[in-house]
Amino acid sequence: MANNVKKIWASGKAVVNGWLAIPSGFSAEVIAQSGFDSVTVDLQHGVQDYLSMVQCFQAMQAHPVTPMVRVPWNEPGIIGKVLDGGAMGVICPMINTKKEAEAFVAACKYPPDGTRSNGPIRAAMYGEATSYQTTANAETLCIPMIETQTAVKNLDAILDVPGIAGVYVGPSDLGFSYGMVPKLDRDEPEILKIYDKLLKACSKHGIHAGIHTGSASYAARAIGMGFRLVTLMNDSGLMQTAAKAGVAQIRKEAKGVA
Amino acid sequence: MANNVKKIWASGKAVVNGWLAIPSGFSAEVIAQSGFDSVTVDLQHGVQDYLSMVQCFQAMQAHPVTPMVRVPWNEPGIIGKVLDGGAMGVICPMINTKKEAEAFVAACKYPPDGTRSNGPIRAAMYGEATSYQTTANAETLCIPMIETQTAVKNLDAILDVPGIAGVYVGPSDLGFSYGMVPKLDRDEPEILKIYDKLLKACSKHGIHAGIHTGSASYAARAIGMGFRLVTLMNDSGLMQTAAKAGVAQIRKEAKGVA
Amino acid sequence: MANNVKKIWASGKAVVNGWLAIPSGFSAEVIAQSGFDSVTVDLQHGVQDYLSMVQCFQAMQAHPVTPMVRVPWNEPGIIGKVLDGGAMGVICPMINTKKEAEAFVAACKYPPDGTRSNGPIRAAMYGEATSYQTTANAETLCIPMIETQTAVKNLDAILDVPGIAGVYVGPSDLGFSYGMVPKLDRDEPEILKIYDKLLKACSKHGIHAGIHTGSASYAARAIGMGFRLVTLMNDSGLMQTAAKAGVAQIRKEAKGVA
Amino acid sequence: MANNVKKIWASGKAVVNGWLAIPSGFSAEVIAQSGFDSVTVDLQHGVQDYLSMVQCFQAMQAHPVTPMVRVPWNEPGIIGKVLDGGAMGVICPMINTKKEAEAFVAACKYPPDGTRSNGPIRAAMYGEATSYQTTANAETLCIPMIETQTAVKNLDAILDVPGIAGVYVGPSDLGFSYGMVPKLDRDEPEILKIYDKLLKACSKHGIHAGIHTGSASYAARAIGMGFRLVTLMNDSGLMQTAAKAGVAQIRKEAKGVA
Amino acid sequence: MANNVKKIWASGKAVVNGWLAIPSGFSAEVIAQSGFDSVTVDLQHGVQDYLSMVQCFQAMQAHPVTPMVRVPWNEPGIIGKVLDGGAMGVICPMINTKKEAEAFVAACKYPPDGTRSNGPIRAAMYGEATSYQTTANAETLCIPMIETQTAVKNLDAILDVPGIAGVYVGPSDLGFSYGMVPKLDRDEPEILKIYDKLLKACSKHGIHAGIHTGSASYAARAIGMGFRLVTLMNDSGLMQTAAKAGVAQIRKEAKGVA
Amino acid sequence: MANNVKKIWASGKAVVNGWLAIPSGFSAEVIAQSGFDSVTVDLQHGVQDYLSMVQCFQAMQAHPVTPMVRVPWNEPGIIGKVLDGGAMGVICPMINTKKEAEAFVAACKYPPDGTRSNGPIRAAMYGEATSYQTTANAETLCIPMIETQTAVKNLDAILDVPGIAGVYVGPSDLGFSYGMVPKLDRDEPEILKIYDKLLKACSKHGIHAGIHTGSASYAARAIGMGFRLVTLMNDSGLMQTAAKAGVAQIRKEAKGVA
Repeated sequence: MANNVKKIWASGKAVVNGWLAIPSGFSAEVIAQSGFDSVTVDLQHGVQDYLSMVQCFQAMQAHPVTPMVRVPWNEPGIIGKVLDGGAMGVICPMINTKKEAEAFVAACKYPPDGTRSNGPIRAAMYGEATSYQTTANAETLCIPMIETQTAVKNLDAILDVPGIAGVYVGPSDLGFSYGMVPKLDRDEPEILKIYDKLLKACSKHGIHAGIHTGSASYAARAIGMGFRLVTLMNDSGLMQTAAKAGVAQIRKEAKGVA
Repeated sequence: MANNVKKIWASGKAVVNGWLAIPSGFSAEVIAQSGFDSVTVDLQHGVQDYLSMVQCFQAMQAHPVTPMVRVPWNEPGIIGKVLDGGAMGVICPMINTKKEAEAFVAACKYPPDGTRSNGPIRAAMYGEATSYQTTANAETLCIPMIETQTAVKNLDAILDVPGIAGVYVGPSDLGFSYGMVPKLDRDEPEILKIYDKLLKACSKHGIHAGIHTGSASYAARAIGMGFRLVTLMNDSGLMQTAAKAGVAQIRKEAKGVA
Repeated sequence: MANNVKKIWASGKAVVNGWLAIPSGFSAEVIAQSGFDSVTVDLQHGVQDYLSMVQCFQAMQAHPVTPMVRVPWNEPGIIGKVLDGGAMGVICPMINTKKEAEAFVAACKYPPDGTRSNGPIRAAMYGEATSYQTTANAETLCIPMIETQTAVKNLDAILDVPGIAGVYVGPSDLGFSYGMVPKLDRDEPEILKIYDKLLKACSKHGIHAGIHTGSASYAARAIGMGFRLVTLMNDSGLMQTAAKAGVAQIRKEAKGVA
Repeated sequence: MANNVKKIWASGKAVVNGWLAIPSGFSAEVIAQSGFDSVTVDLQHGVQDYLSMVQCFQAMQAHPVTPMVRVPWNEPGIIGKVLDGGAMGVICPMINTKKEAEAFVAACKYPPDGTRSNGPIRAAMYGEATSYQTTANAETLCIPMIETQTAVKNLDAILDVPGIAGVYVGPSDLGFSYGMVPKLDRDEPEILKIYDKLLKACSKHGIHAGIHTGSASYAARAIGMGFRLVTLMNDSGLMQTAAKAGVAQIRKEAKGVA
Repeated sequence: MANNVKKIWASGKAVVNGWLAIPSGFSAEVIAQSGFDSVTVDLQHGVQDYLSMVQCFQAMQAHPVTPMVRVPWNEPGIIGKVLDGGAMGVICPMINTKKEAEAFVAACKYPPDGTRSNGPIRAAMYGEATSYQTTANAETLCIPMIETQTAVKNLDAILDVPGIAGVYVGPSDLGFSYGMVPKLDRDEPEILKIYDKLLKACSKHGIHAGIHTGSASYAARAIGMGFRLVTLMNDSGLMQTAAKAGVAQIRKEAKGVA
Repeated sequence: MANNVKKIWASGKAVVNGWLAIPSGFSAEVIAQSGFDSVTVDLQHGVQDYLSMVQCFQAMQAHPVTPMVRVPWNEPGIIGKVLDGGAMGVICPMINTKKEAEAFVAACKYPPDGTRSNGPIRAAMYGEATSYQTTANAETLCIPMIETQTAVKNLDAILDVPGIAGVYVGPSDLGFSYGMVPKLDRDEPEILKIYDKLLKACSKHGIHAGIHTGSASYAARAIGMGFRLVTLMNDSGLMQTAAKAGVAQIRKEAKGVA
């Protein structure tokens, strides 16, 4: 049950992450065969719930992508369920304080590191030779989202919490909380300064930072900045971008006939 | 319940058609907002069944796309169900003979034109002012697929069957039946000659021809040839193409770090 | 596994039948508690498929209603599946000839009466003491629909087929096939004459006739004519009728404020 | 993405609201065509969850009804999800204190009015011309339920919370908390006095009150009292009421034969 | 709506409980016909959610098993939903303090015993003669899980909370919290001493203790210890145990040919 | 996309086959990890349909079992869909004549061997290096069921049809058609003689015979007879057998207390 995201990070490289909003095992297995290192089911803003996540995970399992989840909220019931369902990483939105980070980690880790309840109904299937429960605390990743002014202010306190494997930046909410319009690929100097601060803080704590992006070029640029996990849009966004471009091209080349 | 495909054809223009293989209302409504004129749920080769089709149709209904279906086979049970579910066009695979074409039309049309059974559970919701049953035979389109040597041989007999609104070419199967590899966007002179023959036969019968394509450029080219309905790949294919291209670009621009 | 429809018929009374178009176990259990003697899942014109039928049957099983199905077509695959799933009666649309009736019965009955394949995955759960397979041919009802001119013409030949337990009239299709508008509760003398002929023929063959109705008053009137199974609209029709009436009453009594 | 409930309220009229307990897009689209102004998916006491809500919303979208939700509890994860899914109004049960009301509003509103996270996956589809995020705080309605003694006691403090658009009365729970039997259409003077107090308080705060009713006549009467949103039973209740009445009528008119 | 678990307990006997992890009504009805007294849908570690629970409950209802649920967490929203859905018993994980026990009971009971909201959409269907709401507080069982060191320490304070009907031991988590490996059927003297203490405390409070077991022999042994509800593995565990044993036997007896 | 069943057969050994009646990806992945060589989704008598099959296949794909399907009937629409969905073997019920066998093979094979339509939406994902379409005719197995007197009579004519990879015996239906009770593990000399005849005929044609069994011991015995694919009950049968045995053991060992 070795976690490929951990391996890539250990090698100094960046993880290219896919993102699932469509509640379908079929779209999940298509994305899982598109070259990503990890694929995250988005239970917060995606059209997903726990059982659609299970279907996505089942459909991804034959393919070389690490299964991760963004949970809808920092709530121990759903965090336990996604881990039991097979998540090797949990991204949690809106972690703004040390206390919230501690609660998040506690929900993710078995005793003595936390209070996760035992019952890894699908997760234990991943590896039969070694026991899931003895490696889960080390192999499953707790990744709080840093996406508000408050979180930026409390960054060091949050990163000090033992058990955090990385952070994930939500550029829309982050900008929103600073009074900017919500959008992904940001160039505001103010925000870039925050990214810089965040990357240095992560580096100091020996952990890694990820970010959601709206384009391959920004994703590559983010890797250049120092981010070590970059998400490229999501499944439905990729589909719609391609569909709109294709239709436009057809209409243009059809010269008035379509 | 006027059929927009009919209107576009009447104006001399070509229909740009989307294609749904993912069994999800959410992906359907994303595609339905991408600029297509019509969207077809593929019950033959798509990962779809009758109830996923209903969900796709419900999700598409608020958007300006004509709902169509490719049925899995020329079988009256499923043809009746997709029409009752709201299909304004039915594409039927592997229509190779006049007799098969007649059976297909009979299953699609109410008496006296055919033997369709009455019960348009969702279809009748489309328009309240006029009665669905009085306009359905005229407004719902029967579109046999021409995709084998036999069908090409029997083309005129098939097109003579009253009630056929157009034909749809499956380039993979068509080439396959001539001993070529199965693929979409074809350039073999032999095939182009068949397209030409087919387009002329359609023109003679006052009906329209459609074709499945694997790229916007071929779709535009097909319109130039005379096709009046062009399908651009499918939802999952558009998604995967965009995903693979994006991942490749990230890895390339990340210069070895991803 | 005694069939309550058979018992009611044996007592000389009429069966009041519910009809399910909504693909939900919850609406099924609501209807199953509304006073009907039997409840039929409509796989032809309802928004239903095999798995939604299973959910409806599971949800109905605790309640005193006989589970029946209208299949989408006279096709042995689906007929076997609905019987295995627990249908105690099968209504089959568009049985127009003796040959079609024989094929329908053959698909419904185990050898030596027919060619149904053994595997009553849910049906065998109904009664543990006696064996399902020894009673199924007697207890499950084959009910062809008589709903076209052709069927009326071939009525005696159809009713002669051994194994037919009753017939079911589809007034919409029947009228449609005679050139009338498709509607349920009919008063045309021509149609009433057909009902009369049909009821007499059933009586002669010792079997029973059912009919779909659009109102309680017509249902009661049909019982008076001699029909022994009357269906009252369907779940969604009952709901919408009540909803529209309620909304209208509110708006009226609110005197312009709603 | 103008909210029709707001428009009706602005015109001084009352909203007639439908209520969905059946987890099916099909029943949702039937109710959406029955004359209601808004339709609410009940995630608390209905047989609904987030994904069934999405299907209901997709099926309602082509029809002129404002989509709303009653959430199961005052929990930010699910509140965010239903808003992202397209709810234009959120009814939240058991808001008993100012603090609970503040938490509810915070979960519903984007910064700076609240802490809702950005990602309106379906909601942003409603209007393409204007940005969802710039209008959402004004156009989506926060509606706490007033349904306990405690809430009545804290009424002014609750209504003082900025961002509340209206309140919704749950007559069953309200009576229950005062030691009465749980039922909808109440006539107890004690309760009518509370309604009066509540309506005056709403009026003072410039907001509107809604109420759940079990009959069209009480709904109309409630409008007369001053309520400006009245819910008529729910989908399954309307269906069962109509079914029971129809079956009873058949049995009565069949005079012993059914 | 008499609760069979209560009756068995009143008779001094022990309840044999089934456990559902597979999200399917079909597996639920198979288990419901296997001889258990009660069957629990596991929303915590099972692959279940609220709507799959409803399907399981619908499929179990015709069979003589008391429907229960383990909720994912001590959260009033889901507790209300499972009770409304028909649970006659609620098992809640990780109740470690008196305060948590009080919150759990409050969420389960109608006023004046608690704050459960009224709306038993399926539960009220169980008995028509008597009113669900008047008997629910007495007939539905609140069963906290005792599965940590903290809970053992606070045992008496937890059991003092009015409304608790029994406790349920999670042997894996309990051992885990004491630093032992997570497993079910335990023999560690330390743990057996805790069981003894717990059984005595339950006895003193006039309530009953249940336990999850991994084998029929341990289940019987637990009854001997004094436990009055024993769960035998779960549906998927029973299936896999039987499958592995069967495959092994085939391969062994096939002597190298399989 | 090499087919493991073919490899095992080539090595002279027998395949141990699992059988899925529960429509759930979770039970599928549990069975897929229980030691079987192949796992068959039963669309005929199982509680399965096309989309539940897709979920089962997705959940099995990470595990070393060959995915197969029993289709509900010899109908080209569903045969194409299960192959496109990823079936590496198709078992077809009730093949009684050469003509039926030819139609079955035609539906399974691409031109020039048959008339299967191209579009392997999931199947093509299995192997990217080689093209699915060039190997599918050789690697996917056509397996007619021999389960009636008529089929036994026509055995040689059926086995002569090119493209048949093996046969599958349904002991229940076979016995049923000879007037015996329907059951699996048969000892009637008459039936054993048929098995012997069938095994010799298969051997002569260089193909393999499979059989459905109700116990590991009969499965092993069947291998001894010469069968080269043995199915052990099904998922729900294994589960229920284990559950009933466990409950009985508990009740027995509890000595009257349960």
